[in-house]
Amino acid sequence: MAKSDTQISSNTIDSAPAVLIPLAQGCEELEAVTITDLLARAGFKVVTAGLDDQPVKASRGMVLIPDTTMEKAMPISFDLMVMPGGLPGADHLRDNEFVQKKLKQLAAENKYTAAICAAPMALATAGLLDNKKATSYPGSMDNYMPIGIDYVDDPVVVDGKVVTSRGPGTAMDFALTLIELLAGKEKRNEVEGPLLRPTK
Amino acid sequence: MAKSDTQISSNTIDSAPAVLIPLAQGCEELEAVTITDLLARAGFKVVTAGLDDQPVKASRGMVLIPDTTMEKAMPISFDLMVMPGGLPGADHLRDNEFVQKKLKQLAAENKYTAAICAAPMALATAGLLDNKKATSYPGSMDNYMPIGIDYVDDPVVVDGKVVTSRGPGTAMDFALTLIELLAGKEKRNEVEGPLLRPTK
Repeated sequence: MAKSDTQISSNTIDSAPAVLIPLAQGCEELEAVTITDLLARAGFKVVTAGLDDQPVKASRGMVLIPDTTMEKAMPISFDLMVMPGGLPGADHLRDNEFVQKKLKQLAAENKYTAAICAAPMALATAGLLDNKKATSYPGSMDNYMPIGIDYVDDPVVVDGKVVTSRGPGTAMDFALTLIELLAGKEKRNEVEGPLLRPTK
Repeated sequence: MAKSDTQISSNTIDSAPAVLIPLAQGCEELEAVTITDLLARAGFKVVTAGLDDQPVKASRGMVLIPDTTMEKAMPISFDLMVMPGGLPGADHLRDNEFVQKKLKQLAAENKYTAAICAAPMALATAGLLDNKKATSYPGSMDNYMPIGIDYVDDPVVVDGKVVTSRGPGTAMDFALTLIELLAGKEKRNEVEGPLLRPTK
């Protein structure tokens, strides 16, 4: 069900950041698609990867077809890995060996890792939130509180190369923050303007 | 590629509003998925319908599998038809005979029709914006200005049973407005709270 490799890199520029977005069964589709859409608008090379080779049935019923699988994405270099939340999607991210290995690999390379809603527990399981300032969907981290975490309720939290956020209502700010971090304020503004967000 | 009929009506209640969401090739996926997600959270019976029987390649690269096709959805009764924007998605909605016929049928039944971004031109082509107050993505209606339209720049515009909105940044307000119109303020609040929208 994967799209061809030629489709994956269409509509981007060679120097653009490469982004891996794992799409687990039961992911939150509003979060998943807000992230893929905005990062694609920024010209980033966005690769979505299923944890299996099946279409992804998201948490509110939408069915998405990822570009590739996590297994096939493992040898590829990325500048950022972003995880949408939703349940049971975030449980699958926490438990998947490829997701956990890729998170640790990116952290070791000093690349960005990011998660929203229930997905920060997958960052926590990889040890990436130890002694970090971070957020998540309220309650979703209760069983995964990392050592020395500074847990806050801000919509988007950046601590070094780790970025976390809270839920569907913060997904747009989360994606725009990632654009600003990897491509600068001007690129963020270039993407944010045409969205026509209410100014009030 | 359609999901089975048993899946379409899962997770809803019998008295819930039935909603038809056409998904054209090149639709704006953030708008499409924000609408389907929030209306599903409200317990509405959401049916997505492709204009053909293929997976839908959305405007920023995400591939979606609709529940059914517009042709198969024609005999079904709906309380609301909502159209996401994006190009060339909105052009296809404007030109599709089933979409145009269903819009006119719903209007004749005094049911709700709604469109966001570039898709209000499909409402205009069906004659549903004549003498109405409405909005759209700036410029997208320039060649389709209906007779006697009161065109405004508000994020979401309600005029009788016709609801229009501007773009990705207003999609969440648009979906929540539709929930409030069809199921009341309490249901809107029940859906809006857990989204964790920033309060500032």
